[in-house]
Amino acid sequence: MSAARRIAVVGLGLIGGSLGMRIRDRGLARVIGVDVDPQVARRARERGAADETSTDLAAVRDAEIVIIAVPLDRIVSVAREVAEHATRGAILSEVGSVKAPVVAALEGLGRVRYVGGHPMFGTEAQGIHAAASALADGQPYVLTPTASTDPDALERLRRLVLDLGMRPVILSPEVHDRLVAEVSHLPYLVALALRALAQAEAHEVAGPAFRDATRVAQSPTALWREILRQNRADVLAALDRFTGRLGQIREDLERGEVDRVLEATR
Amino acid sequence: MSAARRIAVVGLGLIGGSLGMRIRDRGLARVIGVDVDPQVARRARERGAADETSTDLAAVRDAEIVIIAVPLDRIVSVAREVAEHATRGAILSEVGSVKAPVVAALEGLGRVRYVGGHPMFGTEAQGIHAAASALADGQPYVLTPTASTDPDALERLRRLVLDLGMRPVILSPEVHDRLVAEVSHLPYLVALALRALAQAEAHEVAGPAFRDATRVAQSPTALWREILRQNRADVLAALDRFTGRLGQIREDLERGEVDRVLEATR
Repeated sequence: MSAARRIAVVGLGLIGGSLGMRIRDRGLARVIGVDVDPQVARRARERGAADETSTDLAAVRDAEIVIIAVPLDRIVSVAREVAEHATRGAILSEVGSVKAPVVAALEGLGRVRYVGGHPMFGTEAQGIHAAASALADGQPYVLTPTASTDPDALERLRRLVLDLGMRPVILSPEVHDRLVAEVSHLPYLVALALRALAQAEAHEVAGPAFRDATRVAQSPTALWREILRQNRADVLAALDRFTGRLGQIREDLERGEVDRVLEATR
Repeated sequence: MSAARRIAVVGLGLIGGSLGMRIRDRGLARVIGVDVDPQVARRARERGAADETSTDLAAVRDAEIVIIAVPLDRIVSVAREVAEHATRGAILSEVGSVKAPVVAALEGLGRVRYVGGHPMFGTEAQGIHAAASALADGQPYVLTPTASTDPDALERLRRLVLDLGMRPVILSPEVHDRLVAEVSHLPYLVALALRALAQAEAHEVAGPAFRDATRVAQSPTALWREILRQNRADVLAALDRFTGRLGQIREDLERGEVDRVLEATR
């Protein structure tokens, strides 16, 4: 058990809703849900994502831990406002998919103890309707401390992640961004290109492997727009390394060296 | 119902086993299963993939339809031997993942009425242990007639596909090979390259989207070796078109035109 009795989740979409459900399912804390949209807040209560909800950020005031799960482009401004309402010394985290710029903007925040985070789960859907505790099951949850992070706050979040049945992975914000460029942002661009390449006729014959390979291309464009903007340099570097590998594959295949294609990529 | 009372399936692996199960589940015909390996044949009976099994190709003799589901590099030789044992006028099909070379080799076969086919399902696993009727549910089943295909044989196979609860798609062998290069063979190479690119550390933080995008990279190498050999020209063409699209994405991203990245690929 983490020692928190009250955890506030700000932003009750797919990620915030699922985390709220999971905290409650596992009996870890009372969940205070906050969302600007009263209908989302109501639906989150109905779906069991929060014990109580509010549309007012001031509702975070009694929480020992506040997790901000709003869209990436609003995390910094929401976090600054949350910090004004939070109890002095509360732990503040957020779930942004790109960490270096967010952490740089937030780690000087007064009153609260900030630690960047990124739970690695999701689906191509979005919103509280698609939230589910099981989505998080066994998935990585990256925490991104820096030299100025409070060690006790980090340790408490690490224990919370374990209590959530997820895998804590501790990385610097910069390493996080480089790695997610490889395993998340680049695969998204690749899925977009694969989907666009296949003509209408090709979709007719596409089996489950193609749907698996391109599923992420269906996820919300607004989310990806912001991710690509904020992690552009790392994504470009990953794209160049990927294109280099494809070029090698092409050469080997053209020469008929199929075994090299299959082995060089292992 | 297709009019066949007996359907022989030669090769009781993932595809042959699943088709056998599905034919039996839906009460379409008695299934005679043939596999060179007596243990596979026994397991196929136990798992409900066939009513009776044999290790001898002569067992196809009373079947109105014979479907050959052995590995791609053995289809042509097995089909020639099957044709010698089959009833005169029996419908012969096979499930090779590349069609033009196989169809060219088989369409002159005497005694039987040959139609190329390719059921588009599978998993990264292989063998009778991984077979399941549900894998085929609603999936495309390509049939690849040519000018010399018997129209009645094609129509009976088309009805069998419908009776199997799958979607018949009629294409020339050449168009089939071009389209599967786009939706299957290229995505396999892309998955190999994505998996190879991600460092050990990156796999630590990989979420479900990465596993979806690279799942097919786990499928059996021997199968892909033969596919890449037999469909090399179409795969190279698809790879070039794909690399061209990635290059455009790179340019747009480098210029900060993220909206173009997201829209140009739709």
